[in-house]
Amino acid sequence: MWPKTHLTDLLGNEHPVIQAPMAGSTTVELVAAVCNAGGIGSMGYSGTPTETIRQDAEKIRKLTDKPFNFNFFAHEAPVNKPEVIEATRERLKPFYSKLGLGEIPRDLSKPLLTFTQERLELLLDIKPPLVSFHFGLPESIAIESLKSAGCRILCSATTTAEAIALEQSGVDIVVAQGWEAGGHRGSFEVNHDDHGVGTMALVPQIVDAVNIPVVAAGGIADGRGIAAAFMLGACGVQMGTAFLSCPEANVSDVHLEAIQNASDDDTRLTKAFSGRPARARGNNYMESIAAHRLPLPDFPTMYTLSGPLRKASDDRLDFRFLLYGQAAALNREMPAAELVRTLVAEARNLL
Amino acid sequence: MWPKTHLTDLLGNEHPVIQAPMAGSTTVELVAAVCNAGGIGSMGYSGTPTETIRQDAEKIRKLTDKPFNFNFFAHEAPVNKPEVIEATRERLKPFYSKLGLGEIPRDLSKPLLTFTQERLELLLDIKPPLVSFHFGLPESIAIESLKSAGCRILCSATTTAEAIALEQSGVDIVVAQGWEAGGHRGSFEVNHDDHGVGTMALVPQIVDAVNIPVVAAGGIADGRGIAAAFMLGACGVQMGTAFLSCPEANVSDVHLEAIQNASDDDTRLTKAFSGRPARARGNNYMESIAAHRLPLPDFPTMYTLSGPLRKASDDRLDFRFLLYGQAAALNREMPAAELVRTLVAEARNLL
Repeated sequence: MWPKTHLTDLLGNEHPVIQAPMAGSTTVELVAAVCNAGGIGSMGYSGTPTETIRQDAEKIRKLTDKPFNFNFFAHEAPVNKPEVIEATRERLKPFYSKLGLGEIPRDLSKPLLTFTQERLELLLDIKPPLVSFHFGLPESIAIESLKSAGCRILCSATTTAEAIALEQSGVDIVVAQGWEAGGHRGSFEVNHDDHGVGTMALVPQIVDAVNIPVVAAGGIADGRGIAAAFMLGACGVQMGTAFLSCPEANVSDVHLEAIQNASDDDTRLTKAFSGRPARARGNNYMESIAAHRLPLPDFPTMYTLSGPLRKASDDRLDFRFLLYGQAAALNREMPAAELVRTLVAEARNLL
Repeated sequence: MWPKTHLTDLLGNEHPVIQAPMAGSTTVELVAAVCNAGGIGSMGYSGTPTETIRQDAEKIRKLTDKPFNFNFFAHEAPVNKPEVIEATRERLKPFYSKLGLGEIPRDLSKPLLTFTQERLELLLDIKPPLVSFHFGLPESIAIESLKSAGCRILCSATTTAEAIALEQSGVDIVVAQGWEAGGHRGSFEVNHDDHGVGTMALVPQIVDAVNIPVVAAGGIADGRGIAAAFMLGACGVQMGTAFLSCPEANVSDVHLEAIQNASDDDTRLTKAFSGRPARARGNNYMESIAAHRLPLPDFPTMYTLSGPLRKASDDRLDFRFLLYGQAAALNREMPAAELVRTLVAEARNLL
């Protein structure tokens, strides 16, 4: 028995547990397994071709008849000052040299990761029960169209002010993403990598500020975190890192090993890889970039500039962008369906 | 009914709610009011003369027969490189000029805020039921003497590793102090102002790592936070900011006004005032110092250097060191006894 069921009422699924969209790490098998176990599975999309997204929807619907979530970045187009690009090139040169890499990429026109008209049309066709956005929302006409098509809209907020803005934009459900969360912060009114509001403080303040259901995210790893989120007034949780240890997730051996050896304080919030703050395993590259508080190119231009470093680093941690949150050390390795059942049993036992 | 009562069992008080020691803001009236309402009141001491501490104990014992807590800093003596001192002077000059202040202090031999033999002897005489430390512990002989005298020892940890170290040092109760917490971080193995573990992630990891009772701190403002902390496995909470709005607290008008206007994201962790990371209302001075990640003099030398700035700033926020946490916006203004009763009623209602 859950203390509030706004989320499950709204979505028609059994448990108020959302498996977070983690672009690159989510698979249709993970999503279907979570959905069939009564949770809400999410596919995270960054640069994925539209046709692949359509095929994913077909595959998921063959594997489950339960509601699922498709997630997209909705960031502003990068507006980079040439001098910031050039200064960043200079800063990256020693790293490129160290790894014996060639020239730093010149073509910074890609990737384009944001939400496009083509994607909107696809979604209006395939109608995922839940559509979520990160880094804010696309323009209001897109939100209205999706809602008219029957999609529920979910978006992340990292401050109370952002949550209020999302409610005013017509979002159905807000994810209160705390400082502890792994991966990119959904921030859209702020863009810093050295501060942020912790889940314990953020959730009740957002609950008090909005009238839509609030889902807690960040630092929630097991039934204790779920129960705590409910006490704070959330009506559901979104958990990402916990699902990275499921066999259905697409996670490299280096990434999984880092999670297996994780400690509470071994991640950092950094813009050094993508240009937007993301929580990932700390390494020397991040520390070097953070040592000088200089502007970096906007997201996702910085991704292009750091690309060869990330790809060249093989099994070394120094240049890897290994995303996980502050409670990764509590991860359990088990199939996703079993994880959902375990989480629900633990939380119910506490509640 | 509380789910666990290790803390109240150990201390003999009614409610597992500790009013945090906040040096400068706590008063004997606040401590006594909290204790008489069934919580645990704490006096925080930094540079307070020993004789004053003795008088405080006498006053508190006249006002209440319940257990109370005396808290002390236990930091290493500062070891400052002359070039860091000189470079910091240069950085502070423009601020001093702006405020029309005279010379930057030359005598950096004071304040001495740490735990001394004189204080140990005083405590062995007055025997507070609970003695707590911040910034780690004094030498083990002091801990053993205090425990032999019947004092329970409490200390803050900001990572799981610190909590384990405290347990091994004989501490009776560990405070898991999350990122959200206002005031100085109790960190002693780490000393950074740009990252830290959020309460939601920290508490369950420390609970799993130690066998002594764990008290949650950071971002807890009302009964929701208390109930959440219990779900995470804590057997009590320590709340500071919430008590700053009590009439018994010693809080300046500027400080109280900042809390009344607080938002979730208006504090920053900074070393710019004291040399150790503390969460306080963000201002231009902090941002200026943070803009260059240069070393600063150790705690508390930096206090001396920033002293004239803090004192000269009157009602302006720019140089004020206004300590509070990320949930200050949830504060209620009421007498301390009423606050304790309200918190307990809210938490019990949820649990």
